[in-house]
Amino acid sequence: MSDDRLETLIVEGRNEVIEALRAGRSIEHIYMLDGAEGGALSTIRREAKKAGIRIEYVDKSRLDRMSETHSHQGVMARIAAYNYVEVDDILKAASDKGEDPFLLLLDGIEDPHNLGAIIRTANVCGAHGVIIMKDRAVGLTATVAKASAGAINHTPVARVTNLSRTIEDLKDKGLWFVCADMDGECMYEQKLTGPIGLVIGAEGKGVARLVKEKCDFITSIPVKGEIDSLNASVAAGVLCYEIVRQRMNA
Amino acid sequence: MSDDRLETLIVEGRNEVIEALRAGRSIEHIYMLDGAEGGALSTIRREAKKAGIRIEYVDKSRLDRMSETHSHQGVMARIAAYNYVEVDDILKAASDKGEDPFLLLLDGIEDPHNLGAIIRTANVCGAHGVIIMKDRAVGLTATVAKASAGAINHTPVARVTNLSRTIEDLKDKGLWFVCADMDGECMYEQKLTGPIGLVIGAEGKGVARLVKEKCDFITSIPVKGEIDSLNASVAAGVLCYEIVRQRMNA
Repeated sequence: MSDDRLETLIVEGRNEVIEALRAGRSIEHIYMLDGAEGGALSTIRREAKKAGIRIEYVDKSRLDRMSETHSHQGVMARIAAYNYVEVDDILKAASDKGEDPFLLLLDGIEDPHNLGAIIRTANVCGAHGVIIMKDRAVGLTATVAKASAGAINHTPVARVTNLSRTIEDLKDKGLWFVCADMDGECMYEQKLTGPIGLVIGAEGKGVARLVKEKCDFITSIPVKGEIDSLNASVAAGVLCYEIVRQRMNA
Repeated sequence: MSDDRLETLIVEGRNEVIEALRAGRSIEHIYMLDGAEGGALSTIRREAKKAGIRIEYVDKSRLDRMSETHSHQGVMARIAAYNYVEVDDILKAASDKGEDPFLLLLDGIEDPHNLGAIIRTANVCGAHGVIIMKDRAVGLTATVAKASAGAINHTPVARVTNLSRTIEDLKDKGLWFVCADMDGECMYEQKLTGPIGLVIGAEGKGVARLVKEKCDFITSIPVKGEIDSLNASVAAGVLCYEIVRQRMNA
């Protein structure tokens, strides 16, 4: 995963980093040569501070190893392939369409192909946005963008530190939360209409207990075989389309 | 894809290849040193002929390059990680359970992660087996096995040369065929019960025209966003579970 990010999302050089800062790109990290001075570097330090972006001071050999262009000029930035939105932007997208909000919340999806496929599904099924976690999860890398088949350009993605708190905030705004888990009631038996947030857990781990406890109900996909769970992106797709079916019939 | 196969599924050496032949493993290909003689090699040639497995005669440098053990003794076989079954075995699995057959037919899925996820879905949703194509498609490699989360050990997979002919044969045995395609009728409006074969097309290409024409009807997943199709394994999951839902209500 880290290779994936390094390979594709490093911006190198003083002007390039300043441009990324001024364009409002989602910068995850700036790497600066320890002890380096100069007007451009001061500008970067000032703008990074304003934007709340952490600068890591590193030695030249580390920068050289990370560099693809071999002209990093003492500064590099790791940027997200795409910009994140705020959670409220997703709600606004729903209200602009005059629709009940339909959000996907991902509790720690680590596989970029799964994340990309889920963003693609969110777009195709008409969900208004996706909320992912800041830590222990993959962000919007180039691999994710590719796996999303371009959906990442249309479907907004927000990134939050604390998924439980986000769920609480959104409950106050009228959303219901349904969490996908094996021990839930069969999805066909549940009412999945109205303003809804669907919470999908990480591969192999499921939804964390604290997040699950915040949800209004647990829903499950019927299992008929020896294997007891679907791939995370397939599970998300199956649940999203049960929501779509119920909304179409509502 | 070829690396994936070569890395994990090459059997090297005279006894090893004879054993693989006698154990009935699915051998895709045998590579033999051009001009080599000996009792064991004659046995391999005879058994391969009996089993309809093609032998490719190659020079020593090619065998050496392909070899991991560096003791290939002039013969290597590329075997599938798992055994294929016959289509009739899948029908028998359904009748043993007293259920209407529910099959997935894949028209040229090339991504091993997608194939693995689809076999996993087939297992979880209670489909009786998966039919894949011999050419222009990925087979049962180690990557597929891993992506299937073990489903490959439970859900039978058959491999056919001509998908249209297989569909015709199965129609004679009472199956209906539904083909996933954007221009079909919405899946929620269709009757997807009874003995059914669901045909899923390759990523980006869809189902081939000749295969589609053999199908009894075309079904589509409703699209609400800017992107007009789901990932192939997600689409397979969504359709499989619409079939499950209708079967549960039937």
